[in-house]
Amino acid sequence: MERGSNMNGGGGKEVVGVANKQSIRWTDFGLRFLAFVLTLVAAIVVGVDKQTSVVAVQLVPTLPAINVRATAKWHHMSAFVYFVIVNAIACAYAVISLVLSLANRGKKKGLSLMIILLDLITVALLFSGGGAALAVGLIGYKGNSHVRWNKVCDKFDRFCGQVAAAIVISLVGSALFLLLVLLAVLNLHKNRRL
Amino acid sequence: MERGSNMNGGGGKEVVGVANKQSIRWTDFGLRFLAFVLTLVAAIVVGVDKQTSVVAVQLVPTLPAINVRATAKWHHMSAFVYFVIVNAIACAYAVISLVLSLANRGKKKGLSLMIILLDLITVALLFSGGGAALAVGLIGYKGNSHVRWNKVCDKFDRFCGQVAAAIVISLVGSALFLLLVLLAVLNLHKNRRL
Repeated sequence: MERGSNMNGGGGKEVVGVANKQSIRWTDFGLRFLAFVLTLVAAIVVGVDKQTSVVAVQLVPTLPAINVRATAKWHHMSAFVYFVIVNAIACAYAVISLVLSLANRGKKKGLSLMIILLDLITVALLFSGGGAALAVGLIGYKGNSHVRWNKVCDKFDRFCGQVAAAIVISLVGSALFLLLVLLAVLNLHKNRRL
Repeated sequence: MERGSNMNGGGGKEVVGVANKQSIRWTDFGLRFLAFVLTLVAAIVVGVDKQTSVVAVQLVPTLPAINVRATAKWHHMSAFVYFVIVNAIACAYAVISLVLSLANRGKKKGLSLMIILLDLITVALLFSGGGAALAVGLIGYKGNSHVRWNKVCDKFDRFCGQVAAAIVISLVGSALFLLLVLLAVLNLHKNRRL
């Protein structure tokens, strides 16, 4: 129910206010659910990522290179481990906050505030994870001659493709969490007293 | 001036309200200035980072390794370039938003809202830059045997030390921008009408 300064606006304004609040709440639920799906998919796509390829390795300089079967796994690279962990945290948090939001429906203002603050921390975590995975992924894709780190994506193309897809999916999820904070700020700003 | 529901609180409450708003504004200015200094220092520390060392390189497998003078520069690694760019953007934005905040002093609510939204985008940018630089820095420090990327920080210790310091400084700056958004949300929440 709307109170205070809206009382002088009459019944019509009150109905519009309630309808607006419901529309904002459903947008929040929708975005939160989508963010949950995207971060879950991103975590799974990297978490199950594994590819075995035959790689030429020069063991002794005077002998020709020998072919070795090598397997690329996501937990070989700490940036990908961090990426999976932050997406899993974001995904778990999205479910918990969705349930809490549905149960609360804006009644307990303290809980709504806590959700905005945790959304903000999730934005920071997800963007740092995305940045880390993208930075390492780019070196895997292009290599870096200055530090003599060879590219590996030419040998593990499917592995790299899955990581790239997960990064894009996770960045969209991160943008949705950012949008959730933006909407909450816009909503608070619209309903400010001063 | 406080209005509306505070009118029944009398002059004392009004004075407390104005004092609170001023204290919030000075906290905002202080944090913003500190964030400006930290992101500026982070950008400069990496931007001037350069170290020349003698490195053993095996050019021909049958001949012994020869010593080559190699120089590590920040723009050799795209993650560090991104790190410098986002810190420079954040630093420039901190100055602009500081000047706008000082000129505005909360009068134009639309401008205050725009600053919160841009602060939020700065948080996302800075954390992605910090994550990227930290991920690449860790590989430089420890290497990764799975992809045969050798560590380089044993040869370029000062270079790596400067990058590490800049990452810590930038992360504190990112946390300050996050704190600015948190404070703005808390302030909006405290002054909500509904």
